[in-house]
Amino acid sequence: MEGQFIELAYALDTFYLLVMGGFVMWMAAGFSMREAGLVQSKSTVEILTKNIALYSIASIMYMLVGFNLMYPTAGDAVIPALGFLGDGVIPTLGFLGDGVIPTASFLLGSSDNATVDVLTSNGDVHYSRLSYFFFQVLFVVVAMSIVSGAVAERMKLSSFLLFCVIMTGLIYPIQGYWKWGGGFLNVMGFQDFAGSGVVHLCGAAAALAGVLLLGARKGKYVNGKINAIPGANMPLATLGTFILWLGWFGFNGGSGFMIQNIGEANAVSLIFVNTNAAAAGGVIAALLFAKLLFGKYDLSMSLNGAIGGLVSITAEPLTPSPELAAIIGAIGGILVVISIIVLDKSKIDDPVGAISAHGTCGIWGLIAVVFSNTSATLTTQLYGVITIFSWTFIMALIFWGILKAVIGIRVSSEEEHVGVDVAECGMEAYPEFVK
Amino acid sequence: MEGQFIELAYALDTFYLLVMGGFVMWMAAGFSMREAGLVQSKSTVEILTKNIALYSIASIMYMLVGFNLMYPTAGDAVIPALGFLGDGVIPTLGFLGDGVIPTASFLLGSSDNATVDVLTSNGDVHYSRLSYFFFQVLFVVVAMSIVSGAVAERMKLSSFLLFCVIMTGLIYPIQGYWKWGGGFLNVMGFQDFAGSGVVHLCGAAAALAGVLLLGARKGKYVNGKINAIPGANMPLATLGTFILWLGWFGFNGGSGFMIQNIGEANAVSLIFVNTNAAAAGGVIAALLFAKLLFGKYDLSMSLNGAIGGLVSITAEPLTPSPELAAIIGAIGGILVVISIIVLDKSKIDDPVGAISAHGTCGIWGLIAVVFSNTSATLTTQLYGVITIFSWTFIMALIFWGILKAVIGIRVSSEEEHVGVDVAECGMEAYPEFVK
Amino acid sequence: MEGQFIELAYALDTFYLLVMGGFVMWMAAGFSMREAGLVQSKSTVEILTKNIALYSIASIMYMLVGFNLMYPTAGDAVIPALGFLGDGVIPTLGFLGDGVIPTASFLLGSSDNATVDVLTSNGDVHYSRLSYFFFQVLFVVVAMSIVSGAVAERMKLSSFLLFCVIMTGLIYPIQGYWKWGGGFLNVMGFQDFAGSGVVHLCGAAAALAGVLLLGARKGKYVNGKINAIPGANMPLATLGTFILWLGWFGFNGGSGFMIQNIGEANAVSLIFVNTNAAAAGGVIAALLFAKLLFGKYDLSMSLNGAIGGLVSITAEPLTPSPELAAIIGAIGGILVVISIIVLDKSKIDDPVGAISAHGTCGIWGLIAVVFSNTSATLTTQLYGVITIFSWTFIMALIFWGILKAVIGIRVSSEEEHVGVDVAECGMEAYPEFVK
Repeated sequence: MEGQFIELAYALDTFYLLVMGGFVMWMAAGFSMREAGLVQSKSTVEILTKNIALYSIASIMYMLVGFNLMYPTAGDAVIPALGFLGDGVIPTLGFLGDGVIPTASFLLGSSDNATVDVLTSNGDVHYSRLSYFFFQVLFVVVAMSIVSGAVAERMKLSSFLLFCVIMTGLIYPIQGYWKWGGGFLNVMGFQDFAGSGVVHLCGAAAALAGVLLLGARKGKYVNGKINAIPGANMPLATLGTFILWLGWFGFNGGSGFMIQNIGEANAVSLIFVNTNAAAAGGVIAALLFAKLLFGKYDLSMSLNGAIGGLVSITAEPLTPSPELAAIIGAIGGILVVISIIVLDKSKIDDPVGAISAHGTCGIWGLIAVVFSNTSATLTTQLYGVITIFSWTFIMALIFWGILKAVIGIRVSSEEEHVGVDVAECGMEAYPEFVK
Repeated sequence: MEGQFIELAYALDTFYLLVMGGFVMWMAAGFSMREAGLVQSKSTVEILTKNIALYSIASIMYMLVGFNLMYPTAGDAVIPALGFLGDGVIPTLGFLGDGVIPTASFLLGSSDNATVDVLTSNGDVHYSRLSYFFFQVLFVVVAMSIVSGAVAERMKLSSFLLFCVIMTGLIYPIQGYWKWGGGFLNVMGFQDFAGSGVVHLCGAAAALAGVLLLGARKGKYVNGKINAIPGANMPLATLGTFILWLGWFGFNGGSGFMIQNIGEANAVSLIFVNTNAAAAGGVIAALLFAKLLFGKYDLSMSLNGAIGGLVSITAEPLTPSPELAAIIGAIGGILVVISIIVLDKSKIDDPVGAISAHGTCGIWGLIAVVFSNTSATLTTQLYGVITIFSWTFIMALIFWGILKAVIGIRVSSEEEHVGVDVAECGMEAYPEFVK
Repeated sequence: MEGQFIELAYALDTFYLLVMGGFVMWMAAGFSMREAGLVQSKSTVEILTKNIALYSIASIMYMLVGFNLMYPTAGDAVIPALGFLGDGVIPTLGFLGDGVIPTASFLLGSSDNATVDVLTSNGDVHYSRLSYFFFQVLFVVVAMSIVSGAVAERMKLSSFLLFCVIMTGLIYPIQGYWKWGGGFLNVMGFQDFAGSGVVHLCGAAAALAGVLLLGARKGKYVNGKINAIPGANMPLATLGTFILWLGWFGFNGGSGFMIQNIGEANAVSLIFVNTNAAAAGGVIAALLFAKLLFGKYDLSMSLNGAIGGLVSITAEPLTPSPELAAIIGAIGGILVVISIIVLDKSKIDDPVGAISAHGTCGIWGLIAVVFSNTSATLTTQLYGVITIFSWTFIMALIFWGILKAVIGIRVSSEEEHVGVDVAECGMEAYPEFVK
């Protein structure tokens, strides 16, 4: 009986992780629809192509390299990768000190151990390692999805896809290792439960680097005037936001990795309730704040408020009460509106508001941890913010900088004028609807 | 082992409730897409704003007030709320008799007991109370979502949002208490498993009150002629219907709150099968019936048939055989077509057919309980219909009547002409597509 | 305790099957959106009507006839059906040999045994039979959904719906019985884990028969020139593909029917990871291959690559390593591009690429089983391909041939010109958008 019982608990936790992973996978569709709705119709096919391609590249790169880089201490690699290179091919750079560069044990390779279970130190069995991998692979998809919207309508697709290879294979996994893989941020007590920093701030920092190197879309800032470029399909943007909201229950709710007992089940329940409350708070705050500022009930800002609220609660969805969660989300909803206005005034052109929703609110979420989680300190949280932001921003600047010098990162002026859909993809999103 | 076993069962039921809740959450996206597809393009942004705002308001109001009002007998409040007001602030109105006004124990407040488990009388542990709250909060979202479509294209957004506060904080929870909270309808034997009455009829009754106070859209009924105002985006309406269909498995399937043993697991399975069969029956019946009437395969009516079938089986998805479920759904599919025609002839303008699908079929569903559930009587079911309808309809009339007198509930004639999107939200749904 | 434990394991497996079934149900929405996005706007309402109607017809026919025909050896019928006809009404055709015609034990009828559990030979309880039925009913929906896209824009809706009755009640269940019901293909060792053959090749074979009888759309092939007829709404097509991708986790992940112990949980996890890897491989391969051929990043081909990759791994998602799964998917992604080009050159007009994605890749998936599953032989796999294809193709030809002779299967030339939406459904999909 004891053995059977352990097997059943293992099965429940595995099933739970797979379902939560399914919810997170769904977020990829959410980003696609959100971005497709918020860009112009002439840039829609390209952003859809970007989204399905980045999902695929992220899945493969993270399987081959990223996962084992991010979680080197999990023992043998779950997915055998690059083992053929032999030991010592990648320098361990040990002089940098422990916990900065993952020890890259994955390079030792391993046989396919898909059916090997995860054992904790005391011998308890928890869940299938591949269910854990499945959950994690979708997190890198989310991080990369954040980038695609910000650089929309003007970046060369080839440069984006090449960046995607590096981002999902190296940039994201290395900073992910610093916190979730047991690296130095984790050791110093930095708290980030489900990834306001590791996923959202990371994605936003890369997006900001891309936007700064690219410059604004033509016609966006002319003679000191900011021209609104409205999204072509607001129902799609709304659908995308609802999808993200739903997917976030898996994103936050799965990040404890266990549900098999009363304590864990209560924790997951509270995370679901808090995630919902924060999103709701974000919508209401953004809606009212935008009404105050602009005199209208602004749908775009309400949608951004939902995302802002969700990102804000992601660093710590477990310790706040639902009321506090709603307040944290509401502040996120106001911050996202302010951030969008400030970025626009600074001529930083982010067509979908990704830098504000994921970056600004990501930082706020990391700070807000200190209001309910007594093991977090403001200093450590800010240290984490600076570390994750700097690493990702600088690495992205370097890599996109190289691409800019070598093959270029921006489409030509004429291509931008006719639209990247025709220029890059040879196809229109809505060929029959007169524009 | 016994303790571990109970913990595992608790975890399974909690996980099941959270997943079912996730499905129900998804219905909010379904209503949004359905309504966005069935209104004119000039009213699309506004209905999307309404939907994401009502979701958020419902989530917060139900957390602060509604849940504890609806389930006062659950012991300490799950979500502490208004406790600072102290005892006796709200009169208990005891003279009305037991079970009419919830005893409002929530006003006593409580500490945050998110991690306190639910215990049944015999000491068995079942599921996290917050997972139960999560599931319930999404039901009030559904009830409120029903209202938004019916009053589309002409109601002032501010009046709608204010009504939403009252509906989700008071009107819905009080009638919900009468049945599901252990109030007088429950005591007298009224049967409503997953809410054909408590959710769907309630939403439809409020919608009807709104529509009657508002009047029809301009141009809908002119010189005794009924003008069809076609929906702008039928793929969205279809997507919304599929989303609702999927979400309904959670709506009905989670309403037994347990799956931890063979009996419960079989019950949930039967509910899934019956829910699907009723929807399928509704589509086929509506499709054929509309073909007979109009000579065409009518997509709108087929979609309404699906919703009609689903609402019809919601009061009792557990006792019918799958064949009976299909028949109950098919009758619902025919009723929804008839109801839409009758309402139109009565100049009751419901752009999305919500009153027919949720109201008419809600009543039918409550009656149909008697065909398979021997503990239900027609008298009691009709008593429940009248009670729920009257309460909600009258309360909605009163509250919207007050709003009408004070701030108005209908946009101006010019605003309606240019569209509520530009007038209320300052934005177009499809700015690039020539109309 | 032992009894309680068995009950809990039963509940977990039942819950798992229901959730996986929910994922598969969602694929119906995926097909609808994919097809609605890939046809012209004037044929959009009709294809949406087709999709929701075929779902409903399939659900009812499979409940009444198909399921008991496909799984006759499961003991008493789960859904009582046609029992009133008495024994001997349908000839058993025993002279054909065992395993060719299901013994049709369902005709004996049975009382409603919804609450009877499934027992294996050694007395272990696994899951609710109705949860199994729920999962299976959605597979026939998927098979039928494959057909609808290929015959889009020109088939008479009435002929399609009549074919749907036969396909879901007879053609699909009989070949399904040959493998999954324990028939002769199963006996000879043919391997098809989740249905590259039984579902996808079967659907594609019926689609091919329909397309050949119908002929190409007007204007598609003129004077030896192939005219591209672009889809009207590429975001919908992309959404549909993401939906299918998500749903496929249930499609493949549920096809082992159990998750209750470590071995099963690891197996389901590997299936999830492999399914994702194959889809990702398919996208990348199709994207790069199409770029090589056409010089553009082709969204349609990338989407088809995803489906191609998913279909390719469906016959055997359990034995390959994730890397092999990605390669199998990548080859599927290349094959789907080649197949679409070849069919087009052969003037076989399949507006959504269903025959290529589900048929060509279905065959490839069945062959690819031999690379990792040592119990499969190429001969047996090819035998299965030929059997499933021939049966379905010939039966579909016969039945659609009869319909063609009696009521016609193609709309008139004028109806096709104005569009099947107005002609068949009396409605436009996007009435306000100028074309």
